[in-house]
Amino acid sequence: MKDQDSFSNFGEFTLINKIIEQLGSHVAKDIFVPPGDDAAAWINSKNSLTVATVDTLTEGTHWRPDTMNFNDVGWRAVTASVSDLAAMGATPTYLLIAITLDSNITDQNITMLTEGIAQSSAVHNVKIAGGDIIRAHTNMISVTAIGEILQDNRYPIMRRTTAEPDELIAISGYPGTSGAGLAIIEEGQREDGLDTELITLHRQPVARVQLGIKAAKAGIKCAIDLSDGLVQDLEHIAKASNIGIEIDTEKIPLHNTAYTLLGREKILDLALGEGGEDFELILIGKAQTLRSLHTMELPVTLIGRTVSHHPGQVKIHDSSGKEYEPPQRGWDHLRND
Amino acid sequence: MKDQDSFSNFGEFTLINKIIEQLGSHVAKDIFVPPGDDAAAWINSKNSLTVATVDTLTEGTHWRPDTMNFNDVGWRAVTASVSDLAAMGATPTYLLIAITLDSNITDQNITMLTEGIAQSSAVHNVKIAGGDIIRAHTNMISVTAIGEILQDNRYPIMRRTTAEPDELIAISGYPGTSGAGLAIIEEGQREDGLDTELITLHRQPVARVQLGIKAAKAGIKCAIDLSDGLVQDLEHIAKASNIGIEIDTEKIPLHNTAYTLLGREKILDLALGEGGEDFELILIGKAQTLRSLHTMELPVTLIGRTVSHHPGQVKIHDSSGKEYEPPQRGWDHLRND
Repeated sequence: MKDQDSFSNFGEFTLINKIIEQLGSHVAKDIFVPPGDDAAAWINSKNSLTVATVDTLTEGTHWRPDTMNFNDVGWRAVTASVSDLAAMGATPTYLLIAITLDSNITDQNITMLTEGIAQSSAVHNVKIAGGDIIRAHTNMISVTAIGEILQDNRYPIMRRTTAEPDELIAISGYPGTSGAGLAIIEEGQREDGLDTELITLHRQPVARVQLGIKAAKAGIKCAIDLSDGLVQDLEHIAKASNIGIEIDTEKIPLHNTAYTLLGREKILDLALGEGGEDFELILIGKAQTLRSLHTMELPVTLIGRTVSHHPGQVKIHDSSGKEYEPPQRGWDHLRND
Repeated sequence: MKDQDSFSNFGEFTLINKIIEQLGSHVAKDIFVPPGDDAAAWINSKNSLTVATVDTLTEGTHWRPDTMNFNDVGWRAVTASVSDLAAMGATPTYLLIAITLDSNITDQNITMLTEGIAQSSAVHNVKIAGGDIIRAHTNMISVTAIGEILQDNRYPIMRRTTAEPDELIAISGYPGTSGAGLAIIEEGQREDGLDTELITLHRQPVARVQLGIKAAKAGIKCAIDLSDGLVQDLEHIAKASNIGIEIDTEKIPLHNTAYTLLGREKILDLALGEGGEDFELILIGKAQTLRSLHTMELPVTLIGRTVSHHPGQVKIHDSSGKEYEPPQRGWDHLRND
């Protein structure tokens, strides 16, 4: 079969079998009913909490063919859903993947998409338990991620609703990095390779699964993953928990290379709202609990605090203590642009 | 708000809240973590088997705006996924729903879609545990259905792989009815109302959840739901179980009104492969077990048998005993038409 054969040469079931074969060990073959039946089936651990989420990436809204190839799309789609489980402190177990493909898709595109799914599944230690694949007018991948929290461990699930006043706010990694990677791709990749890491962080991000589990075990009760931009995601918590949030721009950790290549102002605005999809975790809890994560050498930085006034609102202060209003407070997936 | 406002006037989170409000009691509010967080969470019954599936409907491939409105689309999307669980003998519990909408969608379209989801969820006694909604170039709805089989009951899950030679094959309801409903819509609805039931069966089908559970409890080990057309779905079983299948056209139960309006040949060809998406169940088992379903007044009809020769193949015989080859053996969701 030639690389550039159109995928319409395959039937649905041939294609599914081909994809299952390519996914190899990433397919959950040893569960009670593996992929290939009407539904997949597995036996839950006793005393466990099932945690489930669905997230969709679609061409044009979540990726553009000129900045991301199908390998990256498969990778990111898995990461995006797994990241929602990480934000709850859950261990991802199985994925169900629904794909729609337009008629221009080639065999090579599908191979790359599958490879990206397999690679990201391996990194996140999760197996594919089923899926659906159909032709449509657009390319889309929707990943349902199912995970569990063993109740025997008695640590709480992390919620958006459980922040209290006078707690501290921490962020993992470097927010705005994904947006910085995209900005660099759009400007044209450098020959010196200085931007390689940033581009990889944009195209093949890794969800903070281990951090989520460790934070929940340490006693953090409130978390969210960074998908819409720092301000908007903090607003979700402020509203759900009915508390106010205050952060300091000077405390936000910025990626060194992104700082060098794009400048402080740009990377800060990307972090606050222009970017999004960093898949870092925002953790909110008692000072002592958050500091214990530091002693475990987990990659978290304190960026602000919760307050009892201005409930539902996020206020940003710059180094002089003045309120700062970023050009964009977040990313709306329904926005017309 | 006017009925025909474009949905782009709402932000993502306003729209999600609006939809959650409209879904009312169909939202799983009393689970461990209800919709609105990064992921939904529920505690599994002890000793239960989790069963999960995903199915996507997309405009152009699965429905056309001129034959189905958004209420019907929401209804069918839920039915399609729940039907996969019914084919395993599982009880549906929760749904995760991913929706993409193009920029022409109105507020009224979304209200209808939500209403259809709510109505079908009520009929199938399943709750919505989460979802995702984004703008895209096409309208699409992808439903992940999660169900369970209580292992305490010790009845087997029904598979595609478990048919044996010398068993009988039964079908529920009237295959081809959904295709008949579509054909009638395309011809133009009648004034005498004779076709109303068929049109409803096409637009708002109900999955055979209770039949699936009762069949599994009675000892049926092999089943599939009718989604791609009778011949193709039987071929899935023939291949998965490595047995041959023989069915008799004269035994296939045909819907009386469809017969009257379209004629025997047309409705038979719709049942065998031109139609699809009937969401009836094909059940395969010992003669005695299948007859016990009859005595329970369950709506099943015997249409054929399994054989040890021609494994993987489905042969169709007409009333004279001759082999019959229908114009189409099933529906391929990747086909270019």
